[in-house]
Amino acid sequence: MTDMISTFKQLLARQNIVYISSVDSDGFPCTKAMLTPRECLGMESIYFSTNTSSMRVTHYKNNPKACLYFCDPVTFQGLMLKGLMKVLEDQPTKTRLWRQGDEQYYPLGVTDPDYCALEFSTSECRYYNGKKAQTFLLPNSPD
Amino acid sequence: MTDMISTFKQLLARQNIVYISSVDSDGFPCTKAMLTPRECLGMESIYFSTNTSSMRVTHYKNNPKACLYFCDPVTFQGLMLKGLMKVLEDQPTKTRLWRQGDEQYYPLGVTDPDYCALEFSTSECRYYNGKKAQTFLLPNSPD
Repeated sequence: MTDMISTFKQLLARQNIVYISSVDSDGFPCTKAMLTPRECLGMESIYFSTNTSSMRVTHYKNNPKACLYFCDPVTFQGLMLKGLMKVLEDQPTKTRLWRQGDEQYYPLGVTDPDYCALEFSTSECRYYNGKKAQTFLLPNSPD
Repeated sequence: MTDMISTFKQLLARQNIVYISSVDSDGFPCTKAMLTPRECLGMESIYFSTNTSSMRVTHYKNNPKACLYFCDPVTFQGLMLKGLMKVLEDQPTKTRLWRQGDEQYYPLGVTDPDYCALEFSTSECRYYNGKKAQTFLLPNSPD
């Protein structure tokens, strides 16, 4: 697992985007590129900032099942993290994750009701390297 | 919609991978990078080749709900196609989609039982360009 955390950190350092997926109200998977996370506590808790009014937030409020996919298209390495996504709208979290320049996305500033955070808790990861795939379980277990 | 097809073709021409998502038996979305499609009939029918033994094929046999995501990380343009995925194992389709060099993935050749095709039928597309998102419906309607 130590190797996996090191792979995760390397992938994160090389890329500026991550692919984030949710399940919509009709049961279809929905994927979108996002800027890389604002904060990572190991591989287990990963935080993003986003618009409260976004489609993704509506999906996660109804169904927290999620995955993140980190990929290096040059080396064809990929890491999929499966887990639950929580929408956080409390001010301490919003303040902690706020970065200079965020006004371009949330014009009302750090208290903008259209600004919120996403907290992803990883329960499983699947690592792809060329043609090989390996799955690892993490302590967080989905409901 | 003509503009959308032209955007799709441009994204396809610039990238060598697409992000393909399924829903697993526990209801979690699962995303993975794939090499770009073998064949596209407009944006409506999109064909891939893959391993019959892959996790993705198992998911689609149980639940055909799928999405594809084409992305240019430089321009931050993204196109998500939502629709149904069918696993095709008939020989005419396998022969049609076979390309030189495929032996590295399917050592038994074009009749390899571990070689199959995926047919994606688009019902909806969502286009992301910077901060803007637009949704379009296509004639295929999911069951």
